[in-house]
Amino acid sequence: MGLERNILMTIQYDGRKYHGWQVQQNAVTVQEVFQDAIQSVTGLRHDVKGCSRTDSGVHAFMYVLNFRTECTIPPEKLRLAVQHFLPDDIAVLDCREVPYDFHARYACAGKEYVYKIWNSPLHNPFLKGLALFYPYPLDEKMLNICAADYIGTHDFAAFCASGSSVLSTVRTVTDFEVTRQGSNVTMRVRADGFLYNMVRIMVGTLLDISQGKIGRDEIPSILLSCDRERAGVTAPPQGLYLNRVFYPAEALELKKD
Amino acid sequence: MGLERNILMTIQYDGRKYHGWQVQQNAVTVQEVFQDAIQSVTGLRHDVKGCSRTDSGVHAFMYVLNFRTECTIPPEKLRLAVQHFLPDDIAVLDCREVPYDFHARYACAGKEYVYKIWNSPLHNPFLKGLALFYPYPLDEKMLNICAADYIGTHDFAAFCASGSSVLSTVRTVTDFEVTRQGSNVTMRVRADGFLYNMVRIMVGTLLDISQGKIGRDEIPSILLSCDRERAGVTAPPQGLYLNRVFYPAEALELKKD
Repeated sequence: MGLERNILMTIQYDGRKYHGWQVQQNAVTVQEVFQDAIQSVTGLRHDVKGCSRTDSGVHAFMYVLNFRTECTIPPEKLRLAVQHFLPDDIAVLDCREVPYDFHARYACAGKEYVYKIWNSPLHNPFLKGLALFYPYPLDEKMLNICAADYIGTHDFAAFCASGSSVLSTVRTVTDFEVTRQGSNVTMRVRADGFLYNMVRIMVGTLLDISQGKIGRDEIPSILLSCDRERAGVTAPPQGLYLNRVFYPAEALELKKD
Repeated sequence: MGLERNILMTIQYDGRKYHGWQVQQNAVTVQEVFQDAIQSVTGLRHDVKGCSRTDSGVHAFMYVLNFRTECTIPPEKLRLAVQHFLPDDIAVLDCREVPYDFHARYACAGKEYVYKIWNSPLHNPFLKGLALFYPYPLDEKMLNICAADYIGTHDFAAFCASGSSVLSTVRTVTDFEVTRQGSNVTMRVRADGFLYNMVRIMVGTLLDISQGKIGRDEIPSILLSCDRERAGVTAPPQGLYLNRVFYPAEALELKKD
């Protein structure tokens, strides 16, 4: 086993056809399709570790995975070979060798998501499944001010789907920005980690604020309440994209010996 | 029949699921889906006239159609009602009454197409079916200079798919521009009218110039030859979008009487 390398790949995918990342029975997932493609190249079934369990219909501009393999194909050739066996809605952007103990999920120091909203009374046929169609008025400057209340180290229990079991619901949100370019409204949030459905509930809460169902100054008290019932709806998955994944430099650095 | 109005609708569609505009047997077309939606609103089968016969897999940012109807629903309500019965990959952007003799195809004074190319060694999973994936070097500034040779009134017989029957193959191209934003290369062409596959052959010829198969200064002599064999390949449909359709103001002006 000393001959095994640990390979990191950075991929991008359109999640419309997939039931999220993680392998499950009776549903096509990105992990399964990816393991199939690697198997077509190496002839072996590898256990691929992903950086995040994304929901059904969620997309990724940047997703990081790793797997250990005895295969000796150089990284750039391996990237092209795996891409060859992948469908067109999954792209391999990068492939490199990383330290043997690197794990895409455990080593992850932070993530950034974006949530895309098509805010217009007119449909956009090119954004079906790629953005939330929201035809009502949306004041992105006001929401950007409200969203600043998410920033900081808080107990985000009120923004976590029920039924999830984690040791701690405390997370540090380092940035939350709401911007507009024409009819495209983008919410971008960065944190050291996210609870189950946390981004979608944060976005849904802002949309409820936009509709006057929740007050503009209520986010701090919702956080303090730790009560899921007080936060807003869970925004649908199609607008959500994993945008960036962060690792400490030393986790990626391959030591020469 | 004097109670009939002539209704113009401006629509937008993602053509990936459609075999072009025009109704045909055993294939789903935009015209058929549109006629179905109008029938769901009015209860009647209307003959909808489109501004252009787009090919299978071609998209439209702006497509104009018209139909005559005894239905008395005001235009904005009609727009919403028809949109309600359309799939998400077709959007109705505008609806208005036009003079009774207006015909979307015959009244058309000019059209503009764009052709989208994803020019990168890396796939883009979000542009599957929406752009040509072209991983080879592409000098857009050089091609923009070559493309200027298309501009003017020429016999475009060399840029017309064989088997097409038109009275004249002379057209006036008023603009052809090749631009780049990052990995997105866009070719934009405007003319008083287009022959069958003309844009795709013009684009394919530029790509053949990019690959050195056709000389940079050959477009004028290809035009003069009127020989389809001398022009380049027909670029695939997925990068092509009808972008704008032009009408004389008087064709659209509703006279009060």
